[in-house]
Amino acid sequence: MSFDSQSWLARARALIGDAHVLSSDRGDDLSAYTRDWRNKFEGPALAVLRPANTEEVQAIVRLAAATGVAIVPQGGNTGLCGASVPGSTGPRAVVLQLGRLNRILDIDVENNTATVEAGCVLQTLQQQAAAVGRLFPLSLGAEGSCQIGGNIATNAGGVQVLRYGNTRDLVLGLEVVLPDGERLDLLRGLRKDNTGYDLKQLFIGAEGTLGIITAATVKLFAAPDARVVAFAGVASVAQAVQLLGAMRQRLGERFTAFELISGEAIALVRHYFPDTPAPLQGDWPWYVLMEAADGGDDAVLREAMQTALMACMEDGQLEDVALAGNVAQGQALWMLRENITHAQQMDGSNIKHDVSLPISRIPAFVAAMLPQLAQAFPGARPIVYGHLGDGNLHFNVSAPAAIEPGSWQLQTDAVNQVIHDAVAALHGSISAEHGIGQLKRHELPLYKSAIELDVMRRVKQALDPVGLMNPGKVL
Amino acid sequence: MSFDSQSWLARARALIGDAHVLSSDRGDDLSAYTRDWRNKFEGPALAVLRPANTEEVQAIVRLAAATGVAIVPQGGNTGLCGASVPGSTGPRAVVLQLGRLNRILDIDVENNTATVEAGCVLQTLQQQAAAVGRLFPLSLGAEGSCQIGGNIATNAGGVQVLRYGNTRDLVLGLEVVLPDGERLDLLRGLRKDNTGYDLKQLFIGAEGTLGIITAATVKLFAAPDARVVAFAGVASVAQAVQLLGAMRQRLGERFTAFELISGEAIALVRHYFPDTPAPLQGDWPWYVLMEAADGGDDAVLREAMQTALMACMEDGQLEDVALAGNVAQGQALWMLRENITHAQQMDGSNIKHDVSLPISRIPAFVAAMLPQLAQAFPGARPIVYGHLGDGNLHFNVSAPAAIEPGSWQLQTDAVNQVIHDAVAALHGSISAEHGIGQLKRHELPLYKSAIELDVMRRVKQALDPVGLMNPGKVL
Repeated sequence: MSFDSQSWLARARALIGDAHVLSSDRGDDLSAYTRDWRNKFEGPALAVLRPANTEEVQAIVRLAAATGVAIVPQGGNTGLCGASVPGSTGPRAVVLQLGRLNRILDIDVENNTATVEAGCVLQTLQQQAAAVGRLFPLSLGAEGSCQIGGNIATNAGGVQVLRYGNTRDLVLGLEVVLPDGERLDLLRGLRKDNTGYDLKQLFIGAEGTLGIITAATVKLFAAPDARVVAFAGVASVAQAVQLLGAMRQRLGERFTAFELISGEAIALVRHYFPDTPAPLQGDWPWYVLMEAADGGDDAVLREAMQTALMACMEDGQLEDVALAGNVAQGQALWMLRENITHAQQMDGSNIKHDVSLPISRIPAFVAAMLPQLAQAFPGARPIVYGHLGDGNLHFNVSAPAAIEPGSWQLQTDAVNQVIHDAVAALHGSISAEHGIGQLKRHELPLYKSAIELDVMRRVKQALDPVGLMNPGKVL
Repeated sequence: MSFDSQSWLARARALIGDAHVLSSDRGDDLSAYTRDWRNKFEGPALAVLRPANTEEVQAIVRLAAATGVAIVPQGGNTGLCGASVPGSTGPRAVVLQLGRLNRILDIDVENNTATVEAGCVLQTLQQQAAAVGRLFPLSLGAEGSCQIGGNIATNAGGVQVLRYGNTRDLVLGLEVVLPDGERLDLLRGLRKDNTGYDLKQLFIGAEGTLGIITAATVKLFAAPDARVVAFAGVASVAQAVQLLGAMRQRLGERFTAFELISGEAIALVRHYFPDTPAPLQGDWPWYVLMEAADGGDDAVLREAMQTALMACMEDGQLEDVALAGNVAQGQALWMLRENITHAQQMDGSNIKHDVSLPISRIPAFVAAMLPQLAQAFPGARPIVYGHLGDGNLHFNVSAPAAIEPGSWQLQTDAVNQVIHDAVAALHGSISAEHGIGQLKRHELPLYKSAIELDVMRRVKQALDPVGLMNPGKVL
């Protein structure tokens, strides 16, 4: 039976309203929805659908299921792996954009929970929590435009994982529209619930391949009053790992960040942002940016941090250290960290990696990787930094200075192979926080066992037997 | 085809050794394995198998799968819902007891992880972690005999969930033998890994119905040096909830316990344990046992706790409070909490509940429940206590004083219905930390949606299509 696009669009428009079904044939520009923000992935879409609520999502999913149309769920379209845009091949697809489901349904201050629709922008949720003295700790670069549904579907990481965990750890309940259009209501706000399989876990991090997250109940926390930032110079990655252990022993769960930054990364930032002051008097091969937060007074926390840092210095766990004296100084130290990506971009082409390892193995990994890359790719410049406290490194390799523009990206597979093979040998992950999407789908079979992939496929088959949920992603 | 027990036993003995296949026909006493410790559940077993390692588990599972024999995985057999013993009906079954897989395979101090076999006793793991200055925070009454595999299969809770989460939150990696005997190796020690579906979540809390957990990599933490206990009297449950919020605002993540105890529970303990001193000078309708832990000095933490408690008293969030001056005083306060179960047992028959609710709804729940129970069951005496910080109440209803011995337990379903209906109406859970097993299996369809149950069954079907993994449990 031939597929009649016009009739399909008419049915969709009848379900959710003319204005909310965008299609090229009537002159709508779909590119903001069919192309990812880094311009790496783009695929055709029959339409972009913007339903207003869960019932409309269900109606669209039922129509799609009945007519064999695939669905690409999309939040803020800020992902890094192309999971939120259609694949360039595969079945006829629509983008289901959840931005109109953007209400905060409930903030329960005593239960420390918020219940929000999937399309709520992360920053809006952070702000609404802060307005009642609570912290929603998920925080990442795209927070001004990413949506909580997308954060959950990709199990987003960010800068406070050390203390508060990944997005998975922040989710207590979910509402999901299943591939057949049924609504699965798991929207509970409980810290403890051992009544059968914890089904919400299936949808967290599944990148929209098992169903569409339409709402969530997430954890909130007491907002810390005090926050202190320090910047240390260390002689080696091994010393940074020792420092991490020693500081956590002394300050317990107060740490919100423990970021490793290479001397090369600092030099690059200071080259492209020449106003950036040196964080310490001397130069060190590696640096650590630490942040602790707590209830109570800034002065009390700063005192505790200072005492701990001095003890670590005496014990040989750091070489030099500066403690931010106020909020502005703390922000300046964070800018050093946050400008690495920009500086590297200004510096030319680079091949990005988002790997994780057991923390104990990171020194050996870095020590082995640097000469290995130098040998395999003469002149390539690894810029190493990342969330050391989580075992997560962004091991980005900048093009050799002499290389022709455009040609470095052609080495992506080769560079990936060197780095990802080493990661796999140490039982690490080739995607710590960014996910798989389209970008790393072809690498999954290289680093997962056949049995693990088979169980993943059985789960997919059980929930989405026809395969219409975000096809061509992950599996 | 008829089933030949003798030949089956011979094959099993050939696989894992004569001594490790216990069977009644040769005079072995199986009752320690086929009956739960509370003598509530008992079922027949063809044999009790005690394999030595994962390969032997695989061999047994393959034999069982090929011959249509069901498997009941068992750890320390300390569960409260009958998940670890055979059902009284259902297919021919064997108990697969994992106690010989009891090695600690690795403790990685820098990565803060331990990798252990499933049969390792919880206390052994705690002790081995402590020996290297680390904390494995899972702690519960049965810790001297329960096994980590069972803790994971039931997603055990315990007394430190407030700070460290449930068992699910402590597991980074798993090794699982699937129902077809294949080994699924998810034994990773990573804080971040977004490479596809997080399959380990399926097996955590599934009570052995999807596969057999044979090993795990779990999180360790810096062992807190300081620990302080306080005991407060409050006028109402609502005040206790306010106190929780205020204390967490002031002391952040330092809280390891926040336990609510009714005045009746304290009176009962002091009646049956007459040496127990009164925790406070006056009598209060409700009490709160708090514990905080931290790195650094006891004195510093006690000072912080005292300051916070005094502020709460001024703000009207508590009526009276005592701070334990030393470890012995702290233990004495904990004994008050821990002797509730014993005192209630000495007092006669009681019907236990393990419910959870959004914390904000607990005051209303308790306020509504007490008169409702009094009306429906005149003379019944609810003894209410629990992990308020987790929203988890043990709402145990003691028999009316006048009732004939033995007859109160006959009211179990009726009492359950009153309490569980109210819990469900408030979006709570009828099993916060104990699980479903055989005990609550018949209640699951009353309180779960048909869609949720259907998705659970689809997952079960995907992983265990023949249904030989712990049949008659959960679903």
